[in-house]
Amino acid sequence: MDKIVRINMAELTSSVEPVPAEWVGLGGRALTSTIVAKEVPPTCHALGLSNKLVFAPGLLSGTSAANSGRLSAGAKSPLTGGIKECNAGGTAAKMFAKLGIKALIIEWIPREDKWYSVHVTKDAITIAEESELIGKGNYCLINSVQARYGKPVGVMSVGPVGEMKMLSANISVADPESRVRSLGRGGLGAVMGSKKIKYISIDDSGTPPVMPKDAVKFKGAARIFAKTLLDHPVSGQGLPTYGTNVLVNILNEAGGLPTRNFTSGQFAGHDKISGETMHATIVARGGTPTHGCHAGCQIQCSQVYNDKNGQYVTSGFEYETIWGLGANCCIDDLDDIAEADHIMDDLGCDSIETAVMFGVAMEAGVLPFGDSKEMLRLLRDEIGKGTPLGRVLGGGAAQLGRIYGVTRVPVVKNQGIPAYDPRSVKGIGVTYAMGTMGADHTSGYAIATNILNVGGHVDPLSKVGQVELARNLQIATAAIDSTGMCLFIAFPALDIPECLISLIDMINARFGINLTGDDVTALGKSVLKIEHQFNLDAGLSKEHDRLPEFFSKELLPPHNAIWDFTPAELDAFWNF
Amino acid sequence: MDKIVRINMAELTSSVEPVPAEWVGLGGRALTSTIVAKEVPPTCHALGLSNKLVFAPGLLSGTSAANSGRLSAGAKSPLTGGIKECNAGGTAAKMFAKLGIKALIIEWIPREDKWYSVHVTKDAITIAEESELIGKGNYCLINSVQARYGKPVGVMSVGPVGEMKMLSANISVADPESRVRSLGRGGLGAVMGSKKIKYISIDDSGTPPVMPKDAVKFKGAARIFAKTLLDHPVSGQGLPTYGTNVLVNILNEAGGLPTRNFTSGQFAGHDKISGETMHATIVARGGTPTHGCHAGCQIQCSQVYNDKNGQYVTSGFEYETIWGLGANCCIDDLDDIAEADHIMDDLGCDSIETAVMFGVAMEAGVLPFGDSKEMLRLLRDEIGKGTPLGRVLGGGAAQLGRIYGVTRVPVVKNQGIPAYDPRSVKGIGVTYAMGTMGADHTSGYAIATNILNVGGHVDPLSKVGQVELARNLQIATAAIDSTGMCLFIAFPALDIPECLISLIDMINARFGINLTGDDVTALGKSVLKIEHQFNLDAGLSKEHDRLPEFFSKELLPPHNAIWDFTPAELDAFWNF
Repeated sequence: MDKIVRINMAELTSSVEPVPAEWVGLGGRALTSTIVAKEVPPTCHALGLSNKLVFAPGLLSGTSAANSGRLSAGAKSPLTGGIKECNAGGTAAKMFAKLGIKALIIEWIPREDKWYSVHVTKDAITIAEESELIGKGNYCLINSVQARYGKPVGVMSVGPVGEMKMLSANISVADPESRVRSLGRGGLGAVMGSKKIKYISIDDSGTPPVMPKDAVKFKGAARIFAKTLLDHPVSGQGLPTYGTNVLVNILNEAGGLPTRNFTSGQFAGHDKISGETMHATIVARGGTPTHGCHAGCQIQCSQVYNDKNGQYVTSGFEYETIWGLGANCCIDDLDDIAEADHIMDDLGCDSIETAVMFGVAMEAGVLPFGDSKEMLRLLRDEIGKGTPLGRVLGGGAAQLGRIYGVTRVPVVKNQGIPAYDPRSVKGIGVTYAMGTMGADHTSGYAIATNILNVGGHVDPLSKVGQVELARNLQIATAAIDSTGMCLFIAFPALDIPECLISLIDMINARFGINLTGDDVTALGKSVLKIEHQFNLDAGLSKEHDRLPEFFSKELLPPHNAIWDFTPAELDAFWNF
Repeated sequence: MDKIVRINMAELTSSVEPVPAEWVGLGGRALTSTIVAKEVPPTCHALGLSNKLVFAPGLLSGTSAANSGRLSAGAKSPLTGGIKECNAGGTAAKMFAKLGIKALIIEWIPREDKWYSVHVTKDAITIAEESELIGKGNYCLINSVQARYGKPVGVMSVGPVGEMKMLSANISVADPESRVRSLGRGGLGAVMGSKKIKYISIDDSGTPPVMPKDAVKFKGAARIFAKTLLDHPVSGQGLPTYGTNVLVNILNEAGGLPTRNFTSGQFAGHDKISGETMHATIVARGGTPTHGCHAGCQIQCSQVYNDKNGQYVTSGFEYETIWGLGANCCIDDLDDIAEADHIMDDLGCDSIETAVMFGVAMEAGVLPFGDSKEMLRLLRDEIGKGTPLGRVLGGGAAQLGRIYGVTRVPVVKNQGIPAYDPRSVKGIGVTYAMGTMGADHTSGYAIATNILNVGGHVDPLSKVGQVELARNLQIATAAIDSTGMCLFIAFPALDIPECLISLIDMINARFGINLTGDDVTALGKSVLKIEHQFNLDAGLSKEHDRLPEFFSKELLPPHNAIWDFTPAELDAFWNF
């Protein structure tokens, strides 16, 4: 029997509720956003007693469906001031689903200035004071927690950055190898820190597998679905081979790789940090070029990156991180970037926000462009230790810009713009401007159609068709984010009809219902509208659905592209 | 012949234009807000090339009218993100008026990273590169500039805080004794810093006095007007004797003196920092208890505060500064507060924003409550030198709160709440919430009627009548701020009918027109509506017209008062 679990951090108690009828058909982002919109006052302080932190597995989490292991977290974001959902892989989503926990809602803040842990099993929720692990990084923490229980429990935790409530703080999630995945963007780690929870551990021992209502139909659909993932060139070949970092050379070629804090679209050192170089390096050092962030992943875009001595450095080493510390900071040393990635995972700080911040910090003169050693020192000794400079750097790009009076600050709704220049890839620019989450490439990945020719082709340098593209992708993404599916299923879903059909078949077989494609679209629209209304009620008016001024004042080489959408053109996004 | 002067900092040129017909009847705030609203894109970066910095004397500036020496400055605020007007005394307003400069508009930013000065005479505008005075404080700067010209020229300058574009930066204005008055609040010093102007000097040599069209009528009205200032007990006795600091004991008695970062309404050490104590100290040390910030001031609420050795420390030592570093930071050493006031004037940082920030910083543990020596060190060695911690502290209360994850952060629209707790003086709370300038007591000084029984009495602890009171006061203030008059004329204006009549008579005699009281009210309404629309267009929606959450969650001793206005009650403010 599915249930809602609430944890009251003021009383240090938990309670279990049946799932309200209107939440039964929701999961993942649809559920976190619905709960946040219903229960969190939009104008509250995001780190105060009125905010709530909600975890929810997706509709298909816990089943045998390929790539269904994403966990959603939602809250009011202390970074954007609006609603926030992030999702990540790891082992927790499946455990939540097996425990029948459709949502875990964390409310209030402790009366005393103490830290706590939360342990979840099929029989009990245990809230315990925590002191031993306070100040510890995520790698140490995950291993320590699993040692405490003598088994690989699911772990969601905050590192030092989340403890210190910096706005770049992630919530980290243990992956199957007890390494670190990230519920990144928007500072939800600061919300968890404000609730004074160092970690939540989950033990699904004694629970049966999640059984679809119609197991036969489910199995058939799951097989078709998995095959489409393998058949599509992006999810079946590009991502498994090179990881997301396949994009460095592609975006550089397209003139859309933001370089030197968004002053050029091409980076001279692109070859040194490309997916091709990374793949060769991983293979040469005995690393793992293909790796999944959760059990059941068919795409395996993750990897294990080792150092020159063959020792583990990082995994889940993404294009956006490599772009951000690489091209955007003019650093072409992949080993230094990998080390930075490790430190950020360990500290629990968002690698995109932090990379965009470093670009602005270099422009401000805090450190020189290209100085990777100083970047590593700042991460370790300043952000990690919470010095005043560390707190400045740990608050993200917008904050750094305000503190140093910088005008070229690539953010929307206070959140750093990732990895794709909106002037030369205009579809993603519309997603950045209009997304309910602030600048977030995953909320409507127009790169697919602008650059990768997935789902057709829309000219990246032209405005024509971009608003419609971004709208359709954001609607589809909001639905996908509700299933527990990895967003990368969108590649086959855009090109291979059987992919979406089998996905819907799986949902129907899982719950014994009869959704259509229109229902899924309606769900996506509904989620976006709920989120948009929350943002409006929080004070994020249409003037916040805009890119920063400099994008419409400064031409971007090599195409000398400019951001030229009118407010009315952008606002048409919401015509649905 | 009146004129508009424009300075183009990209071209390093100036130009003179006739006054457009629609601006002829405007001055001070009405003119700066009209120009900013017309010429500055509301969503632009406040420190970028599209913002404009506008100076304007008031309608009566330069005349013999008492207390008509206020100068307005306007721009988009980098602190609030909305429109901003501040006004201050000093010698510049009169000089602008004598030169016939109705507005000085500074546009664009220099192409090269160099500093400049601007010198204004009746014959020329000279823009010169400046290096000698860069990094210098305002006291040194004013004396150096006046030495350069061999006479007491008017000076508007930025100190180190404005050079570094911190959001607490003032524009400073020389007073008749070459000391420092401040165009404070909203970070307009950062805007001047972004234009790379260290100072603007004004020499009115060779200009005739400003002559009213009807000199006889003007003289008669001016005499009546001046008498009303002397006849009212607040402007004629309280302010001249004790300065604005007369309010410490009054607000403490009323339970509305925010203490220990807005956690109580009374301060145990109030007697040590009160206006009465300050007056006795000034007299005992051979200071000046009554002093005017501009020629022609009849109220003389300023003073010269000396140290134990009889040496000058500060002037214009205001209640809000003394409250903020005193009660709000639990500091009861008036000498240390005076020294801090001197440092802030010299650095050019807003003493209200900085005081509110220190309250939040103490709550965050940056320094202990009550530690005045560390406060002085932080001002001098951190803010003054622009260290990372200094930049954190120099960005105001909201920024400090974000960086340290504090939830009790008393700001509206990012600007620190001054000196009067909105829970126990609800009228000023409405002004804070609804004011177009962010939290600003001067924009609608409801203390007059809630606490001082000026203009009648409205119970400070009751919601009844407060929205109407704040609305009427804000309308009147917008009009007064357009005349060049000191806001303190509002005390007699609220109680003595001849005051407002003679004020209007002076304006009519000055320009040969026939304004009525209704016209003045209409002007005030029009100014507020122009400002409000700019703010809406800049993204400050009605959700920004709210006090922070903690005011409606935490009771304020001794009255256990709470902030309990509904959004609809507040939004009724705009029904005019």
